[in-house]
Amino acid sequence: MWRPFFQQYHLIIVQDGDPNKIIKVPEGFDYELYNRNDINRILGPKASCISFKDSACRCFGYMVSKKKYIYTIDDDCFVAKNPSGQDINALEQHIKNLLCPSTPFFFNTLYDPYRDGADFVRGYPFSLREGVPTAVSHGLWLNIPDYDAPTQLVKPRERNTRYVDAVMTIPKGTLFPMCGMNLAFNRELIGPAMYFGLMGDGQPIGRYDDMWAGWCMKVICDHLGWGVKTGLPYIWHSKASNPFVNLKKEYKGIYWQEELIPFFQSATLPKDCTTVQKCYIELSKQVRAKLGKVDDYFLKLADAMVTWIEAWDELNPSGGELVLNGVGK
Amino acid sequence: MWRPFFQQYHLIIVQDGDPNKIIKVPEGFDYELYNRNDINRILGPKASCISFKDSACRCFGYMVSKKKYIYTIDDDCFVAKNPSGQDINALEQHIKNLLCPSTPFFFNTLYDPYRDGADFVRGYPFSLREGVPTAVSHGLWLNIPDYDAPTQLVKPRERNTRYVDAVMTIPKGTLFPMCGMNLAFNRELIGPAMYFGLMGDGQPIGRYDDMWAGWCMKVICDHLGWGVKTGLPYIWHSKASNPFVNLKKEYKGIYWQEELIPFFQSATLPKDCTTVQKCYIELSKQVRAKLGKVDDYFLKLADAMVTWIEAWDELNPSGGELVLNGVGK
Repeated sequence: MWRPFFQQYHLIIVQDGDPNKIIKVPEGFDYELYNRNDINRILGPKASCISFKDSACRCFGYMVSKKKYIYTIDDDCFVAKNPSGQDINALEQHIKNLLCPSTPFFFNTLYDPYRDGADFVRGYPFSLREGVPTAVSHGLWLNIPDYDAPTQLVKPRERNTRYVDAVMTIPKGTLFPMCGMNLAFNRELIGPAMYFGLMGDGQPIGRYDDMWAGWCMKVICDHLGWGVKTGLPYIWHSKASNPFVNLKKEYKGIYWQEELIPFFQSATLPKDCTTVQKCYIELSKQVRAKLGKVDDYFLKLADAMVTWIEAWDELNPSGGELVLNGVGK
Repeated sequence: MWRPFFQQYHLIIVQDGDPNKIIKVPEGFDYELYNRNDINRILGPKASCISFKDSACRCFGYMVSKKKYIYTIDDDCFVAKNPSGQDINALEQHIKNLLCPSTPFFFNTLYDPYRDGADFVRGYPFSLREGVPTAVSHGLWLNIPDYDAPTQLVKPRERNTRYVDAVMTIPKGTLFPMCGMNLAFNRELIGPAMYFGLMGDGQPIGRYDDMWAGWCMKVICDHLGWGVKTGLPYIWHSKASNPFVNLKKEYKGIYWQEELIPFFQSATLPKDCTTVQKCYIELSKQVRAKLGKVDDYFLKLADAMVTWIEAWDELNPSGGELVLNGVGK
């Protein structure tokens, strides 16, 4: 189903679980495939920051990519149809979202003001109409909604059938639950903040990988003046994961998130944090200082955040131009 | 067109302009009609706070109403149809919006979590799922969008044809341009903040009445912990007002709003402002102190804000129960 939409792009496949299993990639795709052995070989001891047996492992792909725009998608997501019955080109919509500015400082009641047939409404300050660069495009899901285990248990038959024809900027200062199922971002802008944390094998939680990345990323985008969008495009989410298994993975996260949200809501970054890396290291210090009290897990996570940035910078050295000018870091 | 939807409700008609003109109200409606002479008679010298020859005069109706929920609508608005071709009962949707809690502290990516077929998504803190009372429901417009004069001039043919099937809470700390064309609110909660300012006849601006109310109201709702929703229902906006006339009314507002938005974005209210009236009086002091420098108009407006609250309290004395207990204000 995805072939017509993905074939023209470069794929990075991060194989989770047993590295001896062979993944058969259909013909005609330009791809790189990494399994756990590859991750260990490439990152050495720093591979400890990449989760195993959890969807969080995908962020290794963000680190090794050389592209400007990244799209990440779950394996149980299929092409959705719009209300006219046409296949939705999710990637095309994400790229539109990322190329088009965001408006985080003031809400536009007709949603995306740059879309055909829309604009800024009366009362929208003209000085804010240029917008700011868009770092992240968060797409949605028809059919199986992205619910937590308790909600899955309570509403096993709920399906999302509502196609909301809108893209909007999440306002500055507002947090949201970023789902990694259908997500795109500008790697050059925000890549180093898209760390999916320590989840799954050997860790006390799972299913908070994308949430963690979303909260860190949003605080940093707010600080650096970049935008985050949510809404279109939809994908078709076919298979609800097992709510009993999910409950086991999530229960500590459900408890901890009550502390995490106030933490991220009040987190501020100093002015000298002028790069994503600096912001992220500063955030790791705040995680250690404030969330370390909640559970020792957050001390490990704070370490892993630092390791992630070190690994990112190792694999993504600064460009040659700066070095030639003698200003390189 | 509106008869089946409005006939069961009590109407308040605020007649603008020449009070000698006779407005013919169709039969079968339960209504009160107020013209300028009535306003002057009822409010005496305090009538100075009610604008003349501007849609701002409507807020007199909010003051004299005895109802809990208010719906206000422009005279060029008609019944819109949903994508299935059915007439939209705008009032019914507004009442749903107002009866249902808001979620201003965290964004839900599936929009209104209380709607049928939707819920809070994974990562939404459980402690925030009860929501808060909804003070305002801001509805939208198909056909003629609510553009300012410059945008009307640049895009004379633009029509809003996009039906976005969503209601959402405007997050805490985020301002938006509240349009009075299709607007409902809980008068018991937020009524005294819905002052539409000094506009039109004898004033240097027009067409900022609803905007002004929206910014004041939002700051107060954020302070008191109440929610503001936007989205459904749509009405059909039939007639674009004259952009040249609008430009004359708006041009100072377009300039001033660049100062107003930062003012309202940074406005904070002290803890002892525990009622809407106290909040509004405090805001009037800040308007005087900070916006008085922008133009003398804001000194007049600050006075009018105080007069409005005095008039409101005169027409809406506190209930007997508090007085009997000896705790009345």
